[in-house]
Amino acid sequence: MTAQSLYTLESWKQLMARAEVMNQPQHHLKRLIADPNRLSAFSLAAADVFFDFSRQRIDATALALLFELARTRGLQEKFAAMTQGEKLNITENRAALHTATRDFSSNSLYLDGKDILPELREVNRRIKDFSDQIHDGTIRGSTGKRFRHVVVIGIGGSYLGTEFVSTALKSYADQNIDLHYLSNVDIHNFGAIIQEIDPEATLWLIISKSYTTPETLANESLARAFMAEKGIDPSKHIVTVTAKGSPGDDPANPVLQSFNMFDFIGGRYSVCSAVGAVPLSLYLGYDIFERFLKGAEAMDSHAVHSPIHENIPLVAALLAIWNNNFLKYPAQAIIPYAAPLAKLAPHVQQLNMESNGKTVNTDGIFLNEPCGPIIFGEPGTNAQHSFFQLAHQGRAFPIEFIGVIHPQYPKYQSLSKGVTNHQELWANLLSQPMALATGKDDADPARCFSGNRPSSTLILKDLSPESIGKLLSFYEARTVFEAFIWGINPFDQFGVELGKVLAGKIRQEMADRNMDSAHSLDSTDATTRFYMEMLFSG
Amino acid sequence: MTAQSLYTLESWKQLMARAEVMNQPQHHLKRLIADPNRLSAFSLAAADVFFDFSRQRIDATALALLFELARTRGLQEKFAAMTQGEKLNITENRAALHTATRDFSSNSLYLDGKDILPELREVNRRIKDFSDQIHDGTIRGSTGKRFRHVVVIGIGGSYLGTEFVSTALKSYADQNIDLHYLSNVDIHNFGAIIQEIDPEATLWLIISKSYTTPETLANESLARAFMAEKGIDPSKHIVTVTAKGSPGDDPANPVLQSFNMFDFIGGRYSVCSAVGAVPLSLYLGYDIFERFLKGAEAMDSHAVHSPIHENIPLVAALLAIWNNNFLKYPAQAIIPYAAPLAKLAPHVQQLNMESNGKTVNTDGIFLNEPCGPIIFGEPGTNAQHSFFQLAHQGRAFPIEFIGVIHPQYPKYQSLSKGVTNHQELWANLLSQPMALATGKDDADPARCFSGNRPSSTLILKDLSPESIGKLLSFYEARTVFEAFIWGINPFDQFGVELGKVLAGKIRQEMADRNMDSAHSLDSTDATTRFYMEMLFSG
Repeated sequence: MTAQSLYTLESWKQLMARAEVMNQPQHHLKRLIADPNRLSAFSLAAADVFFDFSRQRIDATALALLFELARTRGLQEKFAAMTQGEKLNITENRAALHTATRDFSSNSLYLDGKDILPELREVNRRIKDFSDQIHDGTIRGSTGKRFRHVVVIGIGGSYLGTEFVSTALKSYADQNIDLHYLSNVDIHNFGAIIQEIDPEATLWLIISKSYTTPETLANESLARAFMAEKGIDPSKHIVTVTAKGSPGDDPANPVLQSFNMFDFIGGRYSVCSAVGAVPLSLYLGYDIFERFLKGAEAMDSHAVHSPIHENIPLVAALLAIWNNNFLKYPAQAIIPYAAPLAKLAPHVQQLNMESNGKTVNTDGIFLNEPCGPIIFGEPGTNAQHSFFQLAHQGRAFPIEFIGVIHPQYPKYQSLSKGVTNHQELWANLLSQPMALATGKDDADPARCFSGNRPSSTLILKDLSPESIGKLLSFYEARTVFEAFIWGINPFDQFGVELGKVLAGKIRQEMADRNMDSAHSLDSTDATTRFYMEMLFSG
Repeated sequence: MTAQSLYTLESWKQLMARAEVMNQPQHHLKRLIADPNRLSAFSLAAADVFFDFSRQRIDATALALLFELARTRGLQEKFAAMTQGEKLNITENRAALHTATRDFSSNSLYLDGKDILPELREVNRRIKDFSDQIHDGTIRGSTGKRFRHVVVIGIGGSYLGTEFVSTALKSYADQNIDLHYLSNVDIHNFGAIIQEIDPEATLWLIISKSYTTPETLANESLARAFMAEKGIDPSKHIVTVTAKGSPGDDPANPVLQSFNMFDFIGGRYSVCSAVGAVPLSLYLGYDIFERFLKGAEAMDSHAVHSPIHENIPLVAALLAIWNNNFLKYPAQAIIPYAAPLAKLAPHVQQLNMESNGKTVNTDGIFLNEPCGPIIFGEPGTNAQHSFFQLAHQGRAFPIEFIGVIHPQYPKYQSLSKGVTNHQELWANLLSQPMALATGKDDADPARCFSGNRPSSTLILKDLSPESIGKLLSFYEARTVFEAFIWGINPFDQFGVELGKVLAGKIRQEMADRNMDSAHSLDSTDATTRFYMEMLFSG
C-alpha cells in the first residue's frame, strides 16, 4: 500500500476527473443544494451526533468514488487493527492504543503477549482514589492546607487535549480546584501563574512521558525553587505522570504520587490516559471524567463498527481528502458555535497537523503533494466578526461548523430582538453555511458573493461530558482515517527533531557562556551568534 | 491604479519571472543564507525594533523589484494621505484616521473642514478623569462598593485588539480590576462570567459604534436582567462607547458615562480610540495606556517618514505580497516567543484577514487571484509541540517569529540544563528559523527535512507598553501597505453582510415562532427549516 499505488488507483484517477467536473459552474453549490433530497442524502446521524455534509462540493458520483477509495485502502480493517494493538506506528515499532483507555467492554487486549487492560484500569482506579482523597481533604499540602490549585506542567500533547476538555466542561467543575497550564518555557507563563496561586494549596502536576522535555524540566526547576523559597516540601506537592522507569518515576526523588503513561499511546492521543485523567479528575471529579470516557467509547464503537457509508468520522475523513487533494484547499477552519469549545481548534490543530503533516508514506516513499491541511478556528459568532470577511469574499477554505442543541445555562432566557441568546447563536449558525454556499450577485462588485464555499455542520445534543468525549473521539478517528487513506504514519513526529537538535547546540553555547563570560561563540553560524550576542548584551 | 494595471506593471511581470528563478534548487534558502553578509543586507533596525528577513526566499534582485513595485504603487504617498485624512475608504466615503488617536505632535488635523484633534484629545481627557475616579473610589457602584470587575460587551474589533493589549500588559495591571470579555452571544460566555464577578462591584462596558450589533445588544439585555435580579441600578453600572447619536448615546436611557467613537476609525483599527482607551485605562491606569499610545506613535512616524528600503512595516508588506502572489503560499503563521503575546495572532487574524480578504479592487474590478493569506498562530515554544511537524515536513507556509530581549520577570533565574528559562526560549527561537531554512538530508526519508521554508524574525527590546504600541502599529501599517499594493480597500467589510441578512431572516422566523408556537416555518428553505425544528423540539 504505497503512495505510488495511491495515485494510480482507479478510484483516485476517477476522483481527479470528477473534481474537474465539480469545478464547472453547473455544479456550483447553490445548484447542488437546490435538490430537495440533498440534506437527507448527504447527512448522517449516530451516537446522538448529526453530521451534515450537504454543503460540501460533492455529488453522489464523487461520494461513491470516495467510498470505493475507502474500501480499496482497507480503512475499516486498519482502524480495527489499530484498536486491537497492531503496531501501525511502524517507524517507532509501537501500537496506537488510545482507544483502549476508554474500553469498558472488552475482557482483554493483548500487546506483546500481555493483557494491557488490567494495568490501564488499575491506573484509573488509583487516579480515582487519589482525586477523591484530594477532594475530601485526606491528602493535603505540607502545611496542612487543602489543595485548591493544580498547575499542569507539560507541553504539546501533555496539555492541549486536557485544556480542550477542561474548558468545555468548566461548568461541571465543582471541586473548588482551579486548573492552570504551565506549558511555555517563557518565564512569563510561570510569572503569571504564581500571581494566582496559594503555594501552600498548590499541587504541581508534571507530565512528560520521557521526563526529558526541556521546557517541562525547566518549569519543574522553577516550581521547585519557588517551593523552596516558600518553605514548602516538594515531595508533598508534586505529582508526576510519566513512563515507568523515567527520571520522573525515580524513588530516589520522592513525589506525592506518580502515575504511568505508556508508549502505546502518543501524546496527542493521550487525553483519555493518565495525562488527562489526573488533571481532569482533580478538576471535575473522577465520575465526570468517566462519563467523558464513556462518550469517547461510544464514538469509537461507531467508528469501528459502522459501514463506510454510515461512518461519521470516516466520511468526514473522505471529505477532508476530497477538499485537500482534489479540490486543492490548503486549509480548514473549525468553527464551534459554542464558547466552551474555544480550545477545540488548538487541540485539533495539534492532533491533525502533527499527525498528518507528512511527506513520506509508510513505505518511505515521498508523496506527490503535501497531505495535511492547515487547521485553525475560533468560536462563532466571534469568528464572523473576525476573519469571515476572507471566508466569504477572499480565499476560500472549507469550514466545519459545530452546533449544540441544549446549552448549559437554560436559566437565562431574556429576549433580544424577539429571540434568546441561544436562538440568536443558532440563527447565525444556520445562516453562515447557507451564505457561503449560495453567495449572492450584486450590481456592485464589492457587494458580490461568489458562493460555492464548502462546509460541514456537526450537531451535538449538548455539552455533557459524554458529548465532549464523542467529539474528542470523532476528531481522533477522523485524523487516523485520513492518514490511512494517504498511507502515512499518523503516530510519529520526526519533523520536530531537527529544531530540537539545533536548539540543543545553541543551549549548550549559552550554558558555556553562562559559566564563562569569555566563552567564544565563534563555532556557531554568524546569524545565530549575532542573536546570542544581542541577548547576552541586551 | 486598477488591478488590471497591477498585473501588467513591468515590476510585477519581472517579479513573476524572478519567482520562477527563486524556485530553482540553486536558490534554496540554505544557499542564500550561506552568504556572510546575508543578515546585514536583509535586516532593518528602527524604533528599537529589529526586523530580520534574511530567511525569506528572496534575493537582492527580487527585493529591488519589490521596491520598484512599492514606488510605482505610490505606497508612501498613500500612507501619508491616510494619516492626513484622505477618504481612502471610498466605498463608505470615510477617512481612516486611526493614527490620529496617538498623534501627540500635530497641532491640527482637518477632516471635512473641522479640526478633529481637539475632540479626540477631549475624549481621552475624559477617559483619564473617569478611570482615575474609578481607581480612587470617587465613582462607585449603586450599593457603594468600589469597582473590581469590568465586563467588556463587544465583538470583533470592539474587543480583539483590546484583548491583545490587556493580555500583553497584564503584568502592569495593578489597579485591582479584573477585565472580562463578553463577546460571544453564546449564553455560555455570559454564564461563565457571572460565576466570576461580584455584581455590586462590576462595571459593564458596552462597545458598539452603531449600537445595533445583535450579539452586543443581546448581551446587554442579559446584563440588565442580571442587574435587575440583583437589585442594582444599571445607570450606575453601565458605560457605553459608541457613535454620537446612536441608541447607546441616548439621554432617555441614562448610563454612568458615554464616550464617543468616530466613523473615521474602523473597528479593527480602533484599539487606540475610546474602544481600547476605556477598558485599558480602567485595567492598567491611563498613564500606562498613554505610554502604549506613544509607542504606536513612534512606529507610525517610522512608517510615514522612512524611505521604502528602510521602512519595516512596508518591507514586511512587500514580503507578504511576495509570499502570497509570487511564491503562492496561502497562509502565514505568527509565532511570538512570548506568552503575553498569546492574543496577537487572533488580533492580526481579524486585522489582516478582514482588511485584505477581498476580491475586488478600489475600481470595482475583480482581482486575478485571492489576495489575503490565512493568518494563524500560537506562542512558541508551544507551537513547536503542536503544529510544527507540518511546518517542517508537511505543507510549507511562511512564519513570522517574534522575540523579546528583556522579560518582565527577571527575578526567576534558576538554571535547567545550564540555562535560564528565557535563554531556553531563545535557544528555540533561534533554532527554528534555521531548521526551517536549511533542512537536513537523511538516509531515512521519514527523517528528511527539505528545508527552504521561509520566515522573518522580529525582535522587540521588551514587553513595555511602548513596545506593545509599536507592535500594534507595525501590524496596522503592514496591513494597509499590503492593501495599497493590491489596490484594494482595507477599510470596508461587505463580506460579512450576506450572513447578517440571512441571520436576520432566520431570527425573525424564530421570534415569530416564540410568539406563536403554531407559526409555520414553511417560508424558509428545507435545510434551515429542518434545523429550526431540531432546535425548537430539542
